[in-house]
Amino acid sequence: MQKRSSTARSSKSGLWLYGMHTVQAALENPNRQKSRLIATDSAFEELSHRLTKPLPFRHEIMDRLALDKICGRDAVHQGVALSVSPLPDADSEAMLQRPGPILILDQVTDPRNIGAILRSAMAFGAAGVIMQDRHSPEESGVLAKAASGALDHVLVMRAVNLNREIDRFKEKGFWVVGLDAHGELFDGNQFSKRRLVLVLGAEGSGIRPLIRKNCDEFARLNMRGPIDSLNVSVAAAVALYEVARTSS
Amino acid sequence: MQKRSSTARSSKSGLWLYGMHTVQAALENPNRQKSRLIATDSAFEELSHRLTKPLPFRHEIMDRLALDKICGRDAVHQGVALSVSPLPDADSEAMLQRPGPILILDQVTDPRNIGAILRSAMAFGAAGVIMQDRHSPEESGVLAKAASGALDHVLVMRAVNLNREIDRFKEKGFWVVGLDAHGELFDGNQFSKRRLVLVLGAEGSGIRPLIRKNCDEFARLNMRGPIDSLNVSVAAAVALYEVARTSS
Repeated sequence: MQKRSSTARSSKSGLWLYGMHTVQAALENPNRQKSRLIATDSAFEELSHRLTKPLPFRHEIMDRLALDKICGRDAVHQGVALSVSPLPDADSEAMLQRPGPILILDQVTDPRNIGAILRSAMAFGAAGVIMQDRHSPEESGVLAKAASGALDHVLVMRAVNLNREIDRFKEKGFWVVGLDAHGELFDGNQFSKRRLVLVLGAEGSGIRPLIRKNCDEFARLNMRGPIDSLNVSVAAAVALYEVARTSS
Repeated sequence: MQKRSSTARSSKSGLWLYGMHTVQAALENPNRQKSRLIATDSAFEELSHRLTKPLPFRHEIMDRLALDKICGRDAVHQGVALSVSPLPDADSEAMLQRPGPILILDQVTDPRNIGAILRSAMAFGAAGVIMQDRHSPEESGVLAKAASGALDHVLVMRAVNLNREIDRFKEKGFWVVGLDAHGELFDGNQFSKRRLVLVLGAEGSGIRPLIRKNCDEFARLNMRGPIDSLNVSVAAAVALYEVARTSS
């Protein structure tokens, strides 16, 4: 597998991450470039207690209103924000070296949902998350806050072509399961001996036809309603749980 | 079990629901008082195709900007909004008559999380959801949109005293399981013969001590990290899935 060349989407323009867990995880991630920490007095004190290493640069104390202005209205910044560069894309080689399933998100666009999915990917031990470059949101404060630190732990790749990535994992012996209301009942026990690629489509539209064609089988979650009666981040979490439950 | 008397929180002041699924579910709910439907031309056409009965009142066609103003900035209204009264509280008697577990939310306050939990409660067949009156958000457009129609299907009670409600279900033979990182591994098979009350606390703080005391046992989800490394709506969904998986 090759390292994917970076694209225009992976611009190196900075962004603000905020929230206690999110900022802590970014500060502790050696692969994350960061340039400026701003915090209220009390939030900085809490953050200092959490960090195991000294800050690599000076922080700036500001009041809550100044943070509101920088992070944007509605941002639950908890008194702390960090100016960072987006993370470099993970490559599939690195994902292969971690245990757990690969999660492929086909046209999931809401940054809150993506963030929540990264959080579940970390909690249930996914090896990595792959999204399509053109149809996925860039790294942002909203996405990072919903991920609650997971953005700096989970391997994330923005791929030009999802099917090409699926093919690479297939060559390595992965089995590709598409989550779909018309599939067989999803039972992780049936896959406990194989490594899995799990494919999720957007709510409503589902997995696109060309990607469906590349799935080895389809599975539905054990529930009353159709799969799109679940929020996509909940569907992802339950699928990851089902795999984790049966592989430990 | 008695019907809880309504409190000041259950005021009859109106609110706007928005979003296609949400408005459709409210229109089709005979227990929901509604007074005004506004929609863009195209959204009204889509809604009309979805409804099986004629509208009980005239609708008003407006442009998108007028809807933006009424629903509020950031509201993904999809061109349709409905003025409604909040639903009356469900009572525990009605919950007893439905299958599935009872979900108790102890101090979960974020309306998006509550909405997402209602949606999962519907998808995985919970008999009802109980929150504390003082510490839970009122019905709102944001909550209803996150519930994507489930608000008008799931039985919801805002209780003055959560322990009193737990006691009532205990008297009826329910077994009370608190979700907690230090519990036994949660395996729905162990409970497939009993009706369950599932108790979830807020992220970070968990279940409050007085309610912990009233739990029959504690269970943790099969995952790598602690329970609060999950979003609370994801933890609720996975717990409901684990019960549904083993009771069907």
